[in-house]
Amino acid sequence: MAKSLFSRRAFTKSAAVAAFSPLVVSSQTEALADKPADKPGKGNVRRITLYAEQMPDGQTGYGLEPGKATIPGPLIEMVEGDTLEIEMVNNLNVTASLHVHGVDYDTASDGTRLNNSVVEPGARRTYTWRTHAPGRRPGGSIEPGSAGYWHYHDHVVGTDHGTIGIRQGLYGPLVIRRKGDVVPDKQFTVVFSDMTINNRPAHEAPEFVAKLGERVEWIVITHGDLYHTFHIHGHRWADNRTGLLEHPQDQSRIIDTKITGPAESFGFQVIAGERVGAGAWMYHCHVQMHSDMGMAGIFMVTDADGNVPNPPGGDHSGHSMDTHH
Amino acid sequence: MAKSLFSRRAFTKSAAVAAFSPLVVSSQTEALADKPADKPGKGNVRRITLYAEQMPDGQTGYGLEPGKATIPGPLIEMVEGDTLEIEMVNNLNVTASLHVHGVDYDTASDGTRLNNSVVEPGARRTYTWRTHAPGRRPGGSIEPGSAGYWHYHDHVVGTDHGTIGIRQGLYGPLVIRRKGDVVPDKQFTVVFSDMTINNRPAHEAPEFVAKLGERVEWIVITHGDLYHTFHIHGHRWADNRTGLLEHPQDQSRIIDTKITGPAESFGFQVIAGERVGAGAWMYHCHVQMHSDMGMAGIFMVTDADGNVPNPPGGDHSGHSMDTHH
Amino acid sequence: MAKSLFSRRAFTKSAAVAAFSPLVVSSQTEALADKPADKPGKGNVRRITLYAEQMPDGQTGYGLEPGKATIPGPLIEMVEGDTLEIEMVNNLNVTASLHVHGVDYDTASDGTRLNNSVVEPGARRTYTWRTHAPGRRPGGSIEPGSAGYWHYHDHVVGTDHGTIGIRQGLYGPLVIRRKGDVVPDKQFTVVFSDMTINNRPAHEAPEFVAKLGERVEWIVITHGDLYHTFHIHGHRWADNRTGLLEHPQDQSRIIDTKITGPAESFGFQVIAGERVGAGAWMYHCHVQMHSDMGMAGIFMVTDADGNVPNPPGGDHSGHSMDTHH
Repeated sequence: MAKSLFSRRAFTKSAAVAAFSPLVVSSQTEALADKPADKPGKGNVRRITLYAEQMPDGQTGYGLEPGKATIPGPLIEMVEGDTLEIEMVNNLNVTASLHVHGVDYDTASDGTRLNNSVVEPGARRTYTWRTHAPGRRPGGSIEPGSAGYWHYHDHVVGTDHGTIGIRQGLYGPLVIRRKGDVVPDKQFTVVFSDMTINNRPAHEAPEFVAKLGERVEWIVITHGDLYHTFHIHGHRWADNRTGLLEHPQDQSRIIDTKITGPAESFGFQVIAGERVGAGAWMYHCHVQMHSDMGMAGIFMVTDADGNVPNPPGGDHSGHSMDTHH
Repeated sequence: MAKSLFSRRAFTKSAAVAAFSPLVVSSQTEALADKPADKPGKGNVRRITLYAEQMPDGQTGYGLEPGKATIPGPLIEMVEGDTLEIEMVNNLNVTASLHVHGVDYDTASDGTRLNNSVVEPGARRTYTWRTHAPGRRPGGSIEPGSAGYWHYHDHVVGTDHGTIGIRQGLYGPLVIRRKGDVVPDKQFTVVFSDMTINNRPAHEAPEFVAKLGERVEWIVITHGDLYHTFHIHGHRWADNRTGLLEHPQDQSRIIDTKITGPAESFGFQVIAGERVGAGAWMYHCHVQMHSDMGMAGIFMVTDADGNVPNPPGGDHSGHSMDTHH
Repeated sequence: MAKSLFSRRAFTKSAAVAAFSPLVVSSQTEALADKPADKPGKGNVRRITLYAEQMPDGQTGYGLEPGKATIPGPLIEMVEGDTLEIEMVNNLNVTASLHVHGVDYDTASDGTRLNNSVVEPGARRTYTWRTHAPGRRPGGSIEPGSAGYWHYHDHVVGTDHGTIGIRQGLYGPLVIRRKGDVVPDKQFTVVFSDMTINNRPAHEAPEFVAKLGERVEWIVITHGDLYHTFHIHGHRWADNRTGLLEHPQDQSRIIDTKITGPAESFGFQVIAGERVGAGAWMYHCHVQMHSDMGMAGIFMVTDADGNVPNPPGGDHSGHSMDTHH
């Protein structure tokens, strides 16, 4: 019998880690309230600086301030119609870049050598991401909007596809909402990157904590060479744009496991512990070899007081912890 | 040229095997008729016993009676709103469990070491699975129902993710229907488990038999480390919750091949031989190496008299066989 | 740092290759206009001849005339209701066949040894493909139509699943449209076959060229043993039957990357350069090792005059090229 993946020690250690949750760049709730996001090009124009840096452990990451790089990089949120100008500062000693999925960008913001849109060591370059709401084209067909669970990553470190940059942590989540989309209470990002979750060591995947009844958004991204199947215990979602059904007759497939390959991304919202209660719910890659080798973590759902009624690992005493926003 | 995968001998042998079709636990048609499945918690409460046992060939399986374990385990059906209490009896000499996808369960029914919900050798434990119909939450968002093609499996034999338990056969199908869902005439379960179909030897995949025009439900589950692409000759389905279109304008993708990874599951119904006639229709994993190494079987569609007009293998004489329910 | 995947030399060489675009068999626009495709069986009946041949480079392909085989084989288009009779002429020195996905065919057109529907060297055999529009069955359920992005391939060369035939190039695209479906200006077929795109050498994937604003249809097929993730820079599509949204509230997921495994196929339409402009847009498998090893090409979007404003590879001089239909 293998030793437990979820020893008390790992449990405690990963709980501390959850404090380094993704940073939310946009003031997304305000943005939804005060502007007509459904008119393309009428949204906010914001400007941020993103630093590509080496981290203390030798990996590399993106961060919003010098010395604050994280893996995954900061969670960037936009509302359809918004434009984001990102000045990337390359503090690495190799050429790096910023390539994004889902948004509108000129070749100058492609982040590839092919399009001469990379950043030399010590240099900076502004990448512009535009978004738009859905609408009708002159010919009558529907142009889809930008809303979705997307991501960004390096495209040049190591190879012309950024293989080494991605492997070392140069990636992050991007959420684009449609006006009217339901806003979550908390957001968790899971990146299956080769055999790791968020480039963390095996058996030390992040622990995510929410209170019973909180609306939790999961953003799932894959990188590297391998495919994975993302699974959460006790919770499930709709396999569509938002992960939420649109109406009671909606025939979208409801799933709790989804195959995903490199550069795919999806997201969804669940109500923490809905119909299943507080407790320690595993999330993991369901490729057996991958979960056995450590691609598994805990989604800790506490009761209203922040307690877990039946804590994991065989200890039935009450167990209290902070819940992070 | 390789030797035929479908020799007369294999054909005959696998036909006999099809008699061990999945057992239907629920009286699903009655359930649909006599209760308001759309009211969560108002459904039937049933109780069954499930035995985890070693089988004569050394593999392990779940069964509804001692000595009757099968791979896959019994087909369990529920209607949204039903509750099922499963007393698992562990007749193996190692700790085992029952973990399920799709339904509502407390951590006490999680089937993991993490949540102390496993069964020691010789012991028994009751797992409770609840289901519910879709509805509106107080805040207005839609809560999806439990309906779907799900599955259950061990989560502790060999590793804390049940890798050895699953590999040796401790898995089975679970179908949860919505009130009003179309009921099939026959049901076939295909589990791609590592390089096998239903843990059977290579080139001896089950043969499934139906009469022309029968409504056949396929339940497809994947386990292990590998991805697969499930394909049937001459038949196709909608890539949504039921596999059936909801209305003529439904734009769900119609497919005859679907990629699937470990712990994913999906299902659909086809009309046997619709527009293509009786005959021997191959079903197989379309990963070339996998089909070549034996992950292929036959969906035998007979005419109204139980005959196959043009039997496979080059034998054009009339060929009669039983059709199983 | 790896050498560029997109040297000027490769760029020029692949541009020339794009002239060998897929052949369109059907006069699809006319077909849409002059017949009731929504009545099953009332469509056109056409007849073509398809030659399986060895090509000068030693690979094998299907072609519409002797000596004109291509990889992928000719793009075959049908409208729901059409019937196509394909006389396959086997000019190879091994037994070969024609197996198709998505359409209606008897076992005699299955293209398998199992159903004795193969073609000996030097022989010919007619395969009949029928299609139908969606409709209601007598019992009230919906029968899906044949529309979709499908494909055909050999099923017998090398093994009983055609592994060697497929590996050497015996495959091609099939598009079946529904009456009223939007017709594209251009069509590009990408087949991920093992580690190649369209069986071309590494780093020599086809370059596809379109003018800004043209409606471009992509047909993506996978073959072999590997899974891939198809990605295009600067463009995205709906993950449904057509790749197009049906109405502004359509909640289909919008994606720019999709996992796909052997024998899966999908397609979609994009407006070349919509909101992103002319330029060299990469398309590639996003499995990092696969793109690094050459599974990457260029979707070249020119301005109205056929020029690329900022050509790739660091050359900022104006760059003109032909656009092909």
